[in-house]
Amino acid sequence: MNAAPTALTAPAAGSASAAPGADSSPRRIAERTKAFVQEHVFPVEREIIVDGRPMDDALRVRLQEEARQAGVFGPLSPVAYGGLGLDTRALAHVLEAAGASLIGPIAVNASAPDDGNIHLLAHLATAEQARRYLEPLARGEVRSSLAVSEPSPGAGSDLTMLRTTAEKAPGGWKINGVKHFVTGADGAAFSICMAATAGGGATIFLVDQDNPGLTVGRRMPTLDHSAPGGHCEVTFDDCFVPDDAVLGEVGKGFEQIQARLAPSRIMFSMSWLGVAIRAHEMAAARIVGREAFGAAVAGHGMAQAHVADNEIDIAAARALVHSTAAVIDERGALSGAARHASAITKTFVSEAVWRVLDRVVQLYGGLGVCEDELVARFLVEARGFRIYEGPSEVLRWSIARRVLRAYR
Amino acid sequence: MNAAPTALTAPAAGSASAAPGADSSPRRIAERTKAFVQEHVFPVEREIIVDGRPMDDALRVRLQEEARQAGVFGPLSPVAYGGLGLDTRALAHVLEAAGASLIGPIAVNASAPDDGNIHLLAHLATAEQARRYLEPLARGEVRSSLAVSEPSPGAGSDLTMLRTTAEKAPGGWKINGVKHFVTGADGAAFSICMAATAGGGATIFLVDQDNPGLTVGRRMPTLDHSAPGGHCEVTFDDCFVPDDAVLGEVGKGFEQIQARLAPSRIMFSMSWLGVAIRAHEMAAARIVGREAFGAAVAGHGMAQAHVADNEIDIAAARALVHSTAAVIDERGALSGAARHASAITKTFVSEAVWRVLDRVVQLYGGLGVCEDELVARFLVEARGFRIYEGPSEVLRWSIARRVLRAYR
Amino acid sequence: MNAAPTALTAPAAGSASAAPGADSSPRRIAERTKAFVQEHVFPVEREIIVDGRPMDDALRVRLQEEARQAGVFGPLSPVAYGGLGLDTRALAHVLEAAGASLIGPIAVNASAPDDGNIHLLAHLATAEQARRYLEPLARGEVRSSLAVSEPSPGAGSDLTMLRTTAEKAPGGWKINGVKHFVTGADGAAFSICMAATAGGGATIFLVDQDNPGLTVGRRMPTLDHSAPGGHCEVTFDDCFVPDDAVLGEVGKGFEQIQARLAPSRIMFSMSWLGVAIRAHEMAAARIVGREAFGAAVAGHGMAQAHVADNEIDIAAARALVHSTAAVIDERGALSGAARHASAITKTFVSEAVWRVLDRVVQLYGGLGVCEDELVARFLVEARGFRIYEGPSEVLRWSIARRVLRAYR
Amino acid sequence: MNAAPTALTAPAAGSASAAPGADSSPRRIAERTKAFVQEHVFPVEREIIVDGRPMDDALRVRLQEEARQAGVFGPLSPVAYGGLGLDTRALAHVLEAAGASLIGPIAVNASAPDDGNIHLLAHLATAEQARRYLEPLARGEVRSSLAVSEPSPGAGSDLTMLRTTAEKAPGGWKINGVKHFVTGADGAAFSICMAATAGGGATIFLVDQDNPGLTVGRRMPTLDHSAPGGHCEVTFDDCFVPDDAVLGEVGKGFEQIQARLAPSRIMFSMSWLGVAIRAHEMAAARIVGREAFGAAVAGHGMAQAHVADNEIDIAAARALVHSTAAVIDERGALSGAARHASAITKTFVSEAVWRVLDRVVQLYGGLGVCEDELVARFLVEARGFRIYEGPSEVLRWSIARRVLRAYR
Repeated sequence: MNAAPTALTAPAAGSASAAPGADSSPRRIAERTKAFVQEHVFPVEREIIVDGRPMDDALRVRLQEEARQAGVFGPLSPVAYGGLGLDTRALAHVLEAAGASLIGPIAVNASAPDDGNIHLLAHLATAEQARRYLEPLARGEVRSSLAVSEPSPGAGSDLTMLRTTAEKAPGGWKINGVKHFVTGADGAAFSICMAATAGGGATIFLVDQDNPGLTVGRRMPTLDHSAPGGHCEVTFDDCFVPDDAVLGEVGKGFEQIQARLAPSRIMFSMSWLGVAIRAHEMAAARIVGREAFGAAVAGHGMAQAHVADNEIDIAAARALVHSTAAVIDERGALSGAARHASAITKTFVSEAVWRVLDRVVQLYGGLGVCEDELVARFLVEARGFRIYEGPSEVLRWSIARRVLRAYR
Repeated sequence: MNAAPTALTAPAAGSASAAPGADSSPRRIAERTKAFVQEHVFPVEREIIVDGRPMDDALRVRLQEEARQAGVFGPLSPVAYGGLGLDTRALAHVLEAAGASLIGPIAVNASAPDDGNIHLLAHLATAEQARRYLEPLARGEVRSSLAVSEPSPGAGSDLTMLRTTAEKAPGGWKINGVKHFVTGADGAAFSICMAATAGGGATIFLVDQDNPGLTVGRRMPTLDHSAPGGHCEVTFDDCFVPDDAVLGEVGKGFEQIQARLAPSRIMFSMSWLGVAIRAHEMAAARIVGREAFGAAVAGHGMAQAHVADNEIDIAAARALVHSTAAVIDERGALSGAARHASAITKTFVSEAVWRVLDRVVQLYGGLGVCEDELVARFLVEARGFRIYEGPSEVLRWSIARRVLRAYR
Repeated sequence: MNAAPTALTAPAAGSASAAPGADSSPRRIAERTKAFVQEHVFPVEREIIVDGRPMDDALRVRLQEEARQAGVFGPLSPVAYGGLGLDTRALAHVLEAAGASLIGPIAVNASAPDDGNIHLLAHLATAEQARRYLEPLARGEVRSSLAVSEPSPGAGSDLTMLRTTAEKAPGGWKINGVKHFVTGADGAAFSICMAATAGGGATIFLVDQDNPGLTVGRRMPTLDHSAPGGHCEVTFDDCFVPDDAVLGEVGKGFEQIQARLAPSRIMFSMSWLGVAIRAHEMAAARIVGREAFGAAVAGHGMAQAHVADNEIDIAAARALVHSTAAVIDERGALSGAARHASAITKTFVSEAVWRVLDRVVQLYGGLGVCEDELVARFLVEARGFRIYEGPSEVLRWSIARRVLRAYR
Repeated sequence: MNAAPTALTAPAAGSASAAPGADSSPRRIAERTKAFVQEHVFPVEREIIVDGRPMDDALRVRLQEEARQAGVFGPLSPVAYGGLGLDTRALAHVLEAAGASLIGPIAVNASAPDDGNIHLLAHLATAEQARRYLEPLARGEVRSSLAVSEPSPGAGSDLTMLRTTAEKAPGGWKINGVKHFVTGADGAAFSICMAATAGGGATIFLVDQDNPGLTVGRRMPTLDHSAPGGHCEVTFDDCFVPDDAVLGEVGKGFEQIQARLAPSRIMFSMSWLGVAIRAHEMAAARIVGREAFGAAVAGHGMAQAHVADNEIDIAAARALVHSTAAVIDERGALSGAARHASAITKTFVSEAVWRVLDRVVQLYGGLGVCEDELVARFLVEARGFRIYEGPSEVLRWSIARRVLRAYR
């Protein structure tokens, strides 16, 4: 399969984040990433995505080693830790390429929740925390998890409903509470855990996964299966952590966790855009080669309408991703502009990707709902994207309030 | 949970198909069916729908016996065969009630493909064929399957691409070919098989499942798991059937199979409407009891918009179903009016149900994509409805051509 | 142009409201109405709809006289007053036919706001009020207007914001306030006016248009031009009305005005459905006869998709209208069921009609936005339908609250 | 009204087309244009847009003189001709600002069809043609028109159906035919006319408007009124033009007219985006200040959903516009990439603008459909945008074919 027509509309990769012409231009890295995913990831993805085998660590380590050799490992990991240290604009090119496979992002060490956690750690970690947590995570030596969401009536979209508590104890803190949708927990080396602390605020803690007070329960049976480490239930039961387990400032957790938000939303969007593009290309190739009612399916106007709508959705999603990436790089991930733009982009892209995959399923006909075909799994795996990292409804609400505030 | 508000908009059940006031009015049967499904089917549905255990025949037989005792068995089976013999208008009330569970229709012996097959047999079977095939099927003694679709480049939406052939042999026919998406094949007693015969036409055959020339292959890994007998691959290999296995006329298969179409599309719509209503009610109950951002979720305008849109979609879908049911009863299932109306209704209802379930998932938030909750499975199971029995695109094409023909 | 294919899906006109077989069956009246509109209204509609000449009373009187002779005058007027006295189910057939022209409803004396006012008067008027107001209105001798909405910050969708007041005076009331969107005011014989009265409630008054305290201001420049009498600004300035001008009970206006609501919403829906059907038929005829890109426009899949979507929207809208008409007839216009169903129906139909007209404009291409073609005016005229009689957002809110109330 | 929140998501204006920091950076010019439109254009727009007075040349000349003094005249006119000579990326900022008023683009001399004609002339004109036609057009001394579309069965979206002919005559050509939708014809100095010439091709001609063989007929009553010079019917009757009236090459008209396409589509999108943003800002301001049902309208979730959807649509439209502008600048307006990207962008933006304006009308309630409010006119004026310069259906078809071609 050659350069897809959608590539026609891709904005030129600017020279902002890499020396022009060099092997390390974002466009070149994206091309290498695309080739890497096709050669190394496509051959092994079916057993994870279709057959439902959980991604084991041996496979992750092997793929990441191959990525390293291909020069595409660690797009967002700092250069000092063996990564490519790309800025957000460059990531837009590279993660779209990695996203062509659902396990492409983990293969290059840029999958959720590690991607956002790397950002959070880079923003908040002390030197010692960086050495113990950020560096091995960025190097792909370990995986991490994010323990924020709680079963009802605890914290969901509304973080202020946090029920998990951390009480001061001599030399540290005792965390108690139940979390769920703890992405990546199964097999992670540590969790980033948010807990309510005295005074009405929240505090972020770094908790080693082998802490005896932390129990990883079952993987929740979510529609998506391909997230490394799954989405788990996790219990903190008098879980003691030392004082230096506090990430950032005590009581500032609600504000400081925001440092993950814009980056994780935009990176999520980049990877899923890659899935949509691949499915779009698969569908186009397929309908050119199938006949019905006396012509190639590709010759029927209603199929063409789906193809055009997919092309339009992908072009708009990509343009938004690149535009928001620039906002994040120029104004900072914590700026109001970045938060507004990433909320808009995550909402639009998650819905556009869903529409694209849904149309692709229709274009496949009966086989579109048969898990023999990757596209059936793509659709099911994608459903959570409109909810994880902020449901569309909550994002729309926040977008509207930000707009309307200017008029009060 | 009390009478749902959607019931407010339900048209009165006319007296067309049953003595008014009697226990056998469609409305009364629907109420009994609703109660039956809640009491007998809800308690056992999770292991099939969520846990993925295939529906076995022991469970089917048990549920159907309970249905018989509740007076709700066989809504579309002829009275002579122990059924209720309801007309399409009455079925609209009853199958919506049965559809509240994905295994409700099989529990009352009104699930695909048996429902359409009963119609086809009632229309075409000789007395002997009726005795051997229709009667046990209508009585719930056996299940049946429908072997029409073929792998590419065979028959899909375009039946004329049929590759399976039946050649005349002494005293009968030899069928050769490969079918897929053979709904219900695993455990069925017989298949209704379409094959190309000399002269350019097609012929419908009744093939006993234990015919040595018929091999049921694997259940295809479709997104929907709850169809009794699955969707299977089936091979016909020099499969000999006697002359009296021909259903209807030799060479008239393309025309005669249409007798299934309007009934199966409208009954499919009725059952799925039941699923949508149940999910809508579950979501309404849930958001009344959950809080976020300082109020019940049910108090937030964006949640209310989803609830209203669901109510509207359900009301419109139900009105179309009832209106089309009247067309089928008054003009006959083979009339152009019935085919047009049922194509419109299947297209609208399959898309409306999808929208409803999709909004319900959003209303559930994270748990909406977790298979602990039925609604996650409902969404995935429903995806095929927009493709099975005619993809929306093919139906739209046929609808448009029928409209435009009048102006040529 | 012959029977349109959409007619295929029309439910049979029941015998509920007229003797079967007779000339007065709803279906027969609808057919006569269709013929009347084509013969008498189509030839004169352009100067009103396209050229923008306001409908004058001479034309109205002439058309209504022709309607009387054609046996189609007064579908909702009581038989005692020379009307046909049809119930809501029958009206669904007849007003759809009348609606084929934007001035069809006024030609048969069934246009807003007279239609709702007739219902309100029939419900609330004393014998003397009926003689003075209902009878001439029902007979088509006069037109009426409805003075409820007020400029901001007065009553709009939220009636409780009512600013117009009526104070008790000897022998009557003094009304003061400003109204706008007073439909039909220019040339009306009387207004139905809502005003706040002591004690926190509202009261409905019948005000003769020649009352010196009532001043009809300008016709507001609304996008729709074809409403007889326009939408006017009206001022009540110490407008004295006698005690017997009170319609219904003093202080019960908020509740009693609801008697208009379900009927006016459903009749509005019926007429607009007629417009959509006509535009759909015009578009189908047109694209069959036009060529582009080597084939009739009707042969292109994207045009066919529009045609199919229009057919589906029309069928669903019609089914909802008929289903809600039955609810109104069976449970009464004031029942919660009728209010819920009519809110759903008005929301869906107003949006479906808009989609249909919008697609028709696309099918016409450039001429679709040229007022030489009726369809361009249809689109513009239709825009208010999603706002008048309750904006979709307010209706969705009320629908959701009614649904959710059952779960609290 | 201050900087709207939508500005948050605007990509930074690159330095590609102007010296950074200087007064002539695109961002600075856009700011000046915004201020100019607010100060000079807003005060006079109502009589054109609402009251329907055709834009006369005196007003155009006055506004353009004021634009010149404000340093915002001629954004796309060459610097040599007194313009700003901006590239497409810079225009994206400036025309969005100009578009805040429907007559903003003409006020800065960047309205259709002159904008596309300037591009076409810059691409094809001889030095002498540039002197006679391009220079006065770019300087705002004259307006131009575009005579391509023809009444059925002539050229519309399908240019190959061209009926107007040009026959060789001694020293020149004789043009015969009828055109319609000739944008700008009333008052233009010349027309760019496409006519079929011998050999199956087409040729583009420059025809002075005072040519006795050219007759400008009526302004067509299109829904949009604000286009300078209207959309007219034009007849060519033995219209003689000399040999040097040929623009480009004889017989290459079909190919060469494409030089207008990408630029005119993208500039059209930029201006209309400006309208959408203004309407969005007006609606936000309004609903903050209006009450209903016990809270500001801005506090109701369904209103917030509209605001958020508008913000999302605007952000996506803007991102696409900027991304496509970069493609045009980098690969050239005639490249396949530019044509593909501009078709995608025009389709998306025209539909997004329509959705935004439609939601704004709902947010305004009754007054949204009253021409007292600009937003009512905005909606009606915008309807043509989805058809002019290529209807969405034709564009989707072309987009799909370009995508699918790569797989054949």
